[in-house]
Amino acid sequence: MNRHAIQHIVDSSYCFPISPKQITLRLRTAKNDIERAWVIYESKYVIADRQQKVEMKKKFSGGLYDYYSVTLDLTDTRIGYVFYVYDGEEYYFFSEDGLTKTYNYALGYYNFFQYPYINEADILPKVEWTEHAVFYQIFVDRFNIGNKESDKSYINCKWGDIPNPKTFAGGDLKGITQKLDYIKSLGVNTIYLTPIFKSISNHKYDISDYMEIDKQFGCNEDLKELVESAHSKGMRIMLDAVFNHCSDELAQFQDVKKKGRDSEYYDWFVIHGDKPDTEAGNYEMFAACEYMPKFNTSNPKVQEYLCNIGCYYISEYDIDGWRLDVSDEVSHDFWRRFRKEIKAAKKDCIIVGENWHDASNYLKGDQYDSIMNYAFTKACLDYFATGDLDAKGVSEKLNDLLARNTDTVNSMLLNLLDSHDTHRFFSEVGKDRSKMASALALLFIFPGMPCIFYGTEFFTEGGYDPDCRRCMDWKGYEEGKYDESVELIKLLANLRKEYNLASMETVVYAEGDILVVKRIGVDVELTLCVNMTENEACFADKSVKAFSYDLSIDRRK
Amino acid sequence: MNRHAIQHIVDSSYCFPISPKQITLRLRTAKNDIERAWVIYESKYVIADRQQKVEMKKKFSGGLYDYYSVTLDLTDTRIGYVFYVYDGEEYYFFSEDGLTKTYNYALGYYNFFQYPYINEADILPKVEWTEHAVFYQIFVDRFNIGNKESDKSYINCKWGDIPNPKTFAGGDLKGITQKLDYIKSLGVNTIYLTPIFKSISNHKYDISDYMEIDKQFGCNEDLKELVESAHSKGMRIMLDAVFNHCSDELAQFQDVKKKGRDSEYYDWFVIHGDKPDTEAGNYEMFAACEYMPKFNTSNPKVQEYLCNIGCYYISEYDIDGWRLDVSDEVSHDFWRRFRKEIKAAKKDCIIVGENWHDASNYLKGDQYDSIMNYAFTKACLDYFATGDLDAKGVSEKLNDLLARNTDTVNSMLLNLLDSHDTHRFFSEVGKDRSKMASALALLFIFPGMPCIFYGTEFFTEGGYDPDCRRCMDWKGYEEGKYDESVELIKLLANLRKEYNLASMETVVYAEGDILVVKRIGVDVELTLCVNMTENEACFADKSVKAFSYDLSIDRRK
Repeated sequence: MNRHAIQHIVDSSYCFPISPKQITLRLRTAKNDIERAWVIYESKYVIADRQQKVEMKKKFSGGLYDYYSVTLDLTDTRIGYVFYVYDGEEYYFFSEDGLTKTYNYALGYYNFFQYPYINEADILPKVEWTEHAVFYQIFVDRFNIGNKESDKSYINCKWGDIPNPKTFAGGDLKGITQKLDYIKSLGVNTIYLTPIFKSISNHKYDISDYMEIDKQFGCNEDLKELVESAHSKGMRIMLDAVFNHCSDELAQFQDVKKKGRDSEYYDWFVIHGDKPDTEAGNYEMFAACEYMPKFNTSNPKVQEYLCNIGCYYISEYDIDGWRLDVSDEVSHDFWRRFRKEIKAAKKDCIIVGENWHDASNYLKGDQYDSIMNYAFTKACLDYFATGDLDAKGVSEKLNDLLARNTDTVNSMLLNLLDSHDTHRFFSEVGKDRSKMASALALLFIFPGMPCIFYGTEFFTEGGYDPDCRRCMDWKGYEEGKYDESVELIKLLANLRKEYNLASMETVVYAEGDILVVKRIGVDVELTLCVNMTENEACFADKSVKAFSYDLSIDRRK
Repeated sequence: MNRHAIQHIVDSSYCFPISPKQITLRLRTAKNDIERAWVIYESKYVIADRQQKVEMKKKFSGGLYDYYSVTLDLTDTRIGYVFYVYDGEEYYFFSEDGLTKTYNYALGYYNFFQYPYINEADILPKVEWTEHAVFYQIFVDRFNIGNKESDKSYINCKWGDIPNPKTFAGGDLKGITQKLDYIKSLGVNTIYLTPIFKSISNHKYDISDYMEIDKQFGCNEDLKELVESAHSKGMRIMLDAVFNHCSDELAQFQDVKKKGRDSEYYDWFVIHGDKPDTEAGNYEMFAACEYMPKFNTSNPKVQEYLCNIGCYYISEYDIDGWRLDVSDEVSHDFWRRFRKEIKAAKKDCIIVGENWHDASNYLKGDQYDSIMNYAFTKACLDYFATGDLDAKGVSEKLNDLLARNTDTVNSMLLNLLDSHDTHRFFSEVGKDRSKMASALALLFIFPGMPCIFYGTEFFTEGGYDPDCRRCMDWKGYEEGKYDESVELIKLLANLRKEYNLASMETVVYAEGDILVVKRIGVDVELTLCVNMTENEACFADKSVKAFSYDLSIDRRK
């Protein structure tokens, strides 16, 4: 067998507790390399004398590797274990010492794998409401103007103009509140708002006062009304926490600009010199944006300041989640404190990091619950948009991504096709409605929480920022221009309401030109077949048109 | 090339910052599979436009894999990177998406590897004094009787009798203080004491009062004297923190036994029922020892209690380290708090976990500094004692172990041949003095901190607990019986004083029957050659006798 491919890593996506008495173990092998795999285990204090053996199941099949998995119900959670594999010819043991033909349990304490004890404090619990969550991301300035009374002199375009980086279109919180019934009618139950705090920009990722709602968007009462109204309709609100950096207009940074080292806030930032010098850029900042100085989140006072903000919007407004901007550039240490304080304030407040890359080290129960799943986005682009991946390639990629994180994390990942930071997916697929619909079908049926960017239900087009941030075409909607795509979203979102997809098995594979995604429940099975070739293709007894999909639901009872 | 073997994991032993502007990257490939490897990197905000490229060096060569390494000096620590490898025929890129023939830097933000930003809070700093540390572990009851005045009625054997589990021999803290000059003369500068707090057992791993020195061992003043005296001689003291469990005699547990759920300490333990019942064993405990109830370290009050103990012995006694008993069964969450409090009390107080297995998730800067390196012990047993590994096998195993942890961790690992929890190594090698000496030479020259168990300098024999815990034969020592082995220890320990081994490169390989370990400094190179075959063997121009070693020092200036 392929000895280089076999892998198991303790306390990772290969080995994770899911409850105080349950643990899931995974084993990686080369693809199609072995016939069977077992785990041999027992309390590490008795494994020298007796062992239990249970067979594992092939769960994911990626590009190069297969992943076998088993979930053990334990009485003693202090387990030692080794794997046992059969490649069709030989049997092997696999321990910390690698593959061997024999295994000495009496000396196992030196080299078995072990999960030493399941401490509940180290388990990432599932946020229960994520099971049925359907997210809708709103770029506030472009969604809807609700307050007709407030000062609108800052608006510098007509609603619907193609935006530029300095466009202010006038969307506000009241505008969202007024559209809650509309949003709910789509089947959405959770809204993620880009930042809403005081800032001179339209995107408001450069915040100058975290305790004030930006006047363009409304006032404290408007946020209160939005959250309360959403809650009354069974919906949730997630806000955007921009804690990596702030605006140079933030009072604390202004104080440092004025007083330099004499400012009590000097250590709130990372300044290379006596005073921040905007032209010299002698301080840490977001990207190369001197108007966005980076916080020194190692400073306990900064930690307290930011955690207090995080908790304030829970205690005062009862929000349901924080999306963490540029979270990968902030220390693990900070997010650990942040999580403790947020979860103490509201246990089921979800924490979603903005990590575009493998973030498994942030998702072990001590930091976030979830991330924006841009790796999923990329797989979709490669399959539906560029064709860089065919059905086989994307099925392998999706399997590899599922193997990257624990099952708990997979069930809470925020899956997305696009966002305020990408091109619109509809433009990426060349405005092909059938491709777009197929991608959406995959988004909604895949494990995790689907998130659509506002306007996706209108198949809105747009290039990179700022073009992806166009205004909602409410007029077109009222004229029925988008009925077809809106109905599609409703249909797909309804699946998440009707079926507990989170509890279902997932099987992803390719059959010929067809990408097959099955979600298998106790009494129902959903099967998505996607064909991204230019020819009609067949799967079992059905045919799927070119660049199209078929979704079938098989009720077994 | 072997696509299944190549591996890189961000934020792990494959990718770790060593200072605010330096990061080490490693790449794993199949053994002897490629000719060259490079890393291509740049600030992730500009890598789409320009890249830097630097070649990596093969650093470790294990059983199945080679590990290439490079340390980058960065100006911008927010790096994106991909690897570039040449297998003698083709060039490949290696990113989060695997091996590819081309790489699109413009879309790299989706799939390059990245270390998003070096936050100092996430770096594991080196405890500076570890560079020259030589440890000596003392099982207190068996080392030396110092206080001739105190009540000795508990002693139930003659000094030197073969111990049984209930033997009390009378060793005490004063006995250690009196032997400090002796210990120092060996070249030892750090002493690790097994537990010294109130307990009815001879090993005292079942503690009934953490704030009291066990009367058999002495009093508060004796500990103060020991630490002060050690410090005055340039030596350090590490104590044993038994925080996974306590004795059922602990006042808090006794209170719960009496009052059940009404006790304010009920939640200090994990009790399955209204009251702990020793016979039913209805509570969590160490192993199956009902007299050692496990603490509920998720309880903030227990956390505070244990952390306060940890800090108390620093503030009151100025101790230099804590060894953490059964640390793998305590939550990551607890050790994170413990580290914060200990390091706030004394920054260079070392924290050494008792984790027998891969502990990389505890060694990332948020929990311990080091562990007792029992994987090294096992490799030594397999090579020097059982012969299960030959020179090639052990060199590969040692390389694999070096690749398991970061360089920083490797330099601080507590390497040991034996301890109070194993057979004596001298017995494991069948009392072969030459094998024992060879193993000690490896121990002292290997990266990390050598730790010898008291009596190793006498080549003390002994089987498993309690036989490994025999009394020090001071009489034999005074008679000169152990001069040869004592001189060996002095010679080897002196290497750590004379040379800054911690700053040297390490190269471990086999040449024929010889295990070669080179430590390469700027102006000096140490070469250890070990021959564990029954024939004389040759390396370069020297021959090494059967079951023996040769250590040469080459000064280049």
